[in-house]
Amino acid sequence: MHTRTVFFVSDGTGITAETFGNAILAQFEMKPRHVRLPFIDSVDKAHQTVRQINHTAEIEGKKPIVFTTLVNMEVLRVIQEGCKGMLLDMFGTFVHPLEDELGIKSHHRVGRFSDVSRSKEYTDRIEAINFSLAHDDGQSNRDLVNADVILVGVSRSGKTPTSLYLAMQYGMKAANYPLIPEDFERRQLPPALEPHRKKIFGLTIQPERLSEIRNERRPNSKYADLVNCRNEVADAEAMMRRAGIRWLSTTTKSIEEIATTILQEIRPERLEY
Amino acid sequence: MHTRTVFFVSDGTGITAETFGNAILAQFEMKPRHVRLPFIDSVDKAHQTVRQINHTAEIEGKKPIVFTTLVNMEVLRVIQEGCKGMLLDMFGTFVHPLEDELGIKSHHRVGRFSDVSRSKEYTDRIEAINFSLAHDDGQSNRDLVNADVILVGVSRSGKTPTSLYLAMQYGMKAANYPLIPEDFERRQLPPALEPHRKKIFGLTIQPERLSEIRNERRPNSKYADLVNCRNEVADAEAMMRRAGIRWLSTTTKSIEEIATTILQEIRPERLEY
Repeated sequence: MHTRTVFFVSDGTGITAETFGNAILAQFEMKPRHVRLPFIDSVDKAHQTVRQINHTAEIEGKKPIVFTTLVNMEVLRVIQEGCKGMLLDMFGTFVHPLEDELGIKSHHRVGRFSDVSRSKEYTDRIEAINFSLAHDDGQSNRDLVNADVILVGVSRSGKTPTSLYLAMQYGMKAANYPLIPEDFERRQLPPALEPHRKKIFGLTIQPERLSEIRNERRPNSKYADLVNCRNEVADAEAMMRRAGIRWLSTTTKSIEEIATTILQEIRPERLEY
Repeated sequence: MHTRTVFFVSDGTGITAETFGNAILAQFEMKPRHVRLPFIDSVDKAHQTVRQINHTAEIEGKKPIVFTTLVNMEVLRVIQEGCKGMLLDMFGTFVHPLEDELGIKSHHRVGRFSDVSRSKEYTDRIEAINFSLAHDDGQSNRDLVNADVILVGVSRSGKTPTSLYLAMQYGMKAANYPLIPEDFERRQLPPALEPHRKKIFGLTIQPERLSEIRNERRPNSKYADLVNCRNEVADAEAMMRRAGIRWLSTTTKSIEEIATTILQEIRPERLEY
């Protein structure tokens, strides 16, 4: 049973409020109910929001937790004045001290994403997503010279979600290339990758976990067999070691952790700012 | 020229610190230099961090801005005591008042992502990413019954990045299906979609913008021609209207805004919490 409700109130998408709010709530042993209220960008909607929050407060007999990233002061004021929840004003809390330190006023423009759809940074991200998709699973050797990173590893070691995350979060053009038994027999990296060795990054995984993951896809196959997984992983690690490729184990890591680690190792100059 | 440096210091990936810090900084007319310092999870690394920040402060003659999401109190203390930057402690600021309100102590466990790689929520997200990839661009009709949403629209209206974002951010299984001239001639939705009409969501786009985007891919083609784009968009919108499909225009929207809007309209029960 839920004992608390948490609201995420934003005049934009609310993604920042929710990402940050969830990180804070993860510090507590509780499973609150989540209510997203994005695009609260008018005084009218602010009044509706207040009614909704106060209604919840009444029913539950407990103050709802309200994370806001409102930059519209009129909207924020309505909520500050009427809301019976515990208000955590994520913007105001940090924006005001920053104004003092920087000696400039904030412009209270809504949302980090507004009007970005034609910005260079945004179109680069979309281009990176398209690149990563087109270069998923060794689909294309064309244009590898433009890749920021090329992930290699055995099938199901985490290459695809990591590539997409690198593209989406960091605008990195991330190709990925499987290491397959044929490569191990030849004892060489796939030939298309040789000229790009410097930007190759390897992913490996515990054979036991790999076998579990593969079994979900193809139960009782040779592909998923533990002995086979052990051999493939050992071969792949030996190959990466010989080729001097940096690698990490994805076994207990999330794609966010894998991506951040790769970004620390391979920093495309293109993306420095 | 950069006039300030902003540090994002975290004992985890630093993604939360950066997402939130960027949203705050977007309120100011300035282009600071960004330095990510993830995985600062020991007192040693904390001391290194302090040295790096103070070195920057000295060189630039201005206080660096330091966003932290540190939950390890020992690490935080080293930085609080030694750092000559402006410290914005994003966790402490909200965690302590929350402890009072909730009447429970936070556990100071690092990172929202730690140990999640085998959690249900995480594996669901990975499954959603795989689903969305396998159902990109009408590649597969299998299993559409398990889709949470099916995006339709003309080629390059934004379906693919939106599907992947829905999967990655919200764990939604998002298929996408192109509307093509053959569908317009038949004046009917692609037959495979008919049984799933309730979970279809349409994306449209201004023909001028569409023509620009397509021209980058295939310059001077019929595909990119403005008149052709106008016809396709008009046909697609007429079809969606006839079929009673909800839709939105992606022209000035980011994938985050598109995804959030879709989530408001189509809330898979599976994902309620």
